[in-house]
Amino acid sequence: MLGSMAGVKPSGIVTLLSDFGTQDAYVGAMKGVILRQNPRANLVDITHDVHPFAVLQGAFLLDSTWSAFPAGTVHLAVVDPGVGSTRPAIAMAGGEHFFVGPDNGLFTFVLERIVAHAVALPVPTSASATFHGRDVFAPAAAQLAGGTPLERLGAPLQTPSKLDEAWAARVGEGWRAHILHCDRFGNIITNLPASSVGRIHAVNGVAVRGVRTYGDASAGELVVIAGSASRVEVAIREGSAAARLHASPGDPIIVT
Amino acid sequence: MLGSMAGVKPSGIVTLLSDFGTQDAYVGAMKGVILRQNPRANLVDITHDVHPFAVLQGAFLLDSTWSAFPAGTVHLAVVDPGVGSTRPAIAMAGGEHFFVGPDNGLFTFVLERIVAHAVALPVPTSASATFHGRDVFAPAAAQLAGGTPLERLGAPLQTPSKLDEAWAARVGEGWRAHILHCDRFGNIITNLPASSVGRIHAVNGVAVRGVRTYGDASAGELVVIAGSASRVEVAIREGSAAARLHASPGDPIIVT
Amino acid sequence: MLGSMAGVKPSGIVTLLSDFGTQDAYVGAMKGVILRQNPRANLVDITHDVHPFAVLQGAFLLDSTWSAFPAGTVHLAVVDPGVGSTRPAIAMAGGEHFFVGPDNGLFTFVLERIVAHAVALPVPTSASATFHGRDVFAPAAAQLAGGTPLERLGAPLQTPSKLDEAWAARVGEGWRAHILHCDRFGNIITNLPASSVGRIHAVNGVAVRGVRTYGDASAGELVVIAGSASRVEVAIREGSAAARLHASPGDPIIVT
Repeated sequence: MLGSMAGVKPSGIVTLLSDFGTQDAYVGAMKGVILRQNPRANLVDITHDVHPFAVLQGAFLLDSTWSAFPAGTVHLAVVDPGVGSTRPAIAMAGGEHFFVGPDNGLFTFVLERIVAHAVALPVPTSASATFHGRDVFAPAAAQLAGGTPLERLGAPLQTPSKLDEAWAARVGEGWRAHILHCDRFGNIITNLPASSVGRIHAVNGVAVRGVRTYGDASAGELVVIAGSASRVEVAIREGSAAARLHASPGDPIIVT
Repeated sequence: MLGSMAGVKPSGIVTLLSDFGTQDAYVGAMKGVILRQNPRANLVDITHDVHPFAVLQGAFLLDSTWSAFPAGTVHLAVVDPGVGSTRPAIAMAGGEHFFVGPDNGLFTFVLERIVAHAVALPVPTSASATFHGRDVFAPAAAQLAGGTPLERLGAPLQTPSKLDEAWAARVGEGWRAHILHCDRFGNIITNLPASSVGRIHAVNGVAVRGVRTYGDASAGELVVIAGSASRVEVAIREGSAAARLHASPGDPIIVT
Repeated sequence: MLGSMAGVKPSGIVTLLSDFGTQDAYVGAMKGVILRQNPRANLVDITHDVHPFAVLQGAFLLDSTWSAFPAGTVHLAVVDPGVGSTRPAIAMAGGEHFFVGPDNGLFTFVLERIVAHAVALPVPTSASATFHGRDVFAPAAAQLAGGTPLERLGAPLQTPSKLDEAWAARVGEGWRAHILHCDRFGNIITNLPASSVGRIHAVNGVAVRGVRTYGDASAGELVVIAGSASRVEVAIREGSAAARLHASPGDPIIVT
């Protein structure tokens, strides 16, 4: 069943993405657990600044990065509002990469691009009820990075969860979309595919113009652009579209 | 005297914890110094977001992470309000780990768990009066990670400093405790041991209930929980206890 | 022409400095691209918190760190308000280090300290118009870290750009300076050389006193100090000079 990964050698790289922030000891504790099992692991922070509990945003940020890494990389992702509840903990292999985290939709976009084999990770009775990142996910990531086969980590799990709001829905002449992420520059990344840019006239009732680069926009003009993440982005040249439209990750957005 | 570490091989890992923040070049400069002496060092950021000069908070965050790392790891910790004064610079070995930083109580909790041998690091005359992290601590960490024996780094120092406010004191029916840390989710970590959870009825005069997981709390309810750091945490489910109680690291807190 | 670097072996280290922040996937995507080409690369974050588009601040922070690293290190720096315009993309070698980024003055201070050989990097037609960090600079950094000679990366470029406002100008009895950076502790780093400290009496009309260490200042007193970056810093002991003087990176400042 896991034959598709049989020839994939671990790269030794473990990426980390979470909503833990960087002011706490949570990320450091996960890193320690991984390195204790596998001192040669090459740990790479993606981001720990996902909004607290924002699973859709975490799914987007993971989607934007994992495939850039070498085959055999382990991606550890923890945005986990249901920790301590009955949501499964999973590890997956597919597309020559490995993924570890809660089964709550965090891997929605990954699952669109790969055929994944998943297992449910057992939760040891000694595990903290509030910190599966350290006690469940990090040990699994370390094992995968060290070459332990996926099927040894747990029993097969057939259908990992996906988020309903992952993609925009057509509504009349337009779309009901969601905001995946607002970046540091105030750009709004939506869940509309980049190919829609030419057909967009307004966002939440505000007129916009489609442009190819930020340089094609006038100062202060609200524009839409095919972003580097292959999705429609809403931007203001040298300004913040997120502030102008009061946008936050997870918000719905009406595009016409 | 340092025989207890004689058999410990360096792991090559150097963890970094400081109050330098991440917007400055200070952390990068320390990393450069370590890698210049030891290009094979595996640098792992714990956090650089300790509140400026908050030694007790730094001591807590270090305590939450160091023992997760493999034997032979060097922990470089710099929260150093007294830089340029006469406070000693130290390096320590114990519990199969190494520690480097200012001797101001930052290693209080470490010293509760290990028998440490300490040396006072000489401060070169060329060292910046404001940046011992780069000029004193980073070189010592690089040397320890490369296998230089501790006793070669300086003269023995008998009693490293500890913080008086490390643990809560009994006062009548309750405790006078301190806030060690407020995490990203607004949870307040106190210096009461987790075993006290069942006996707590109020924090700063506000009624609380002891629960096992966040899921056992009602939305908006103030609860206490045995946190993943083996200490009592004060939390609000899907809310910020730190905001509700106006709490900051280092603040005293009355628990009954 | 590139003979000065002929004997320099890559250290395998790639430092990263940008204004991308840490809440986005941009830095992770760059890291993935580098590791895909060169899984052995040792990635070291300097900072990603340069103010958006603040080229002078980025130039300062790079200047404060690069020379601490071992010979053969590649420094990838991206603060790039002109991405998608005609500004060249460059790679440089000099002083036994390598540098990659936009040719917009970001390497101004580096160029004062080394004799650099530069090449213009070609921009592939497949490159995103908004993300040369991932599509142009990261691949070049990976190649240099892997030992590809500089001259294979592009055609020679004679005179990399420098910023006019890099150093303070004499004006009457004083200087017209610029603020390079405000650090986490509220210290203001100016572009006046540290040797000027003894001659300074006022900053923006506010009286200051020159001191050797922060300990020599009274609480709340505004002082100037020869900072660890070899430039004049304006500071308040246990306070924020940046807040007191409403200072931001890039602001002009009058020193008498």
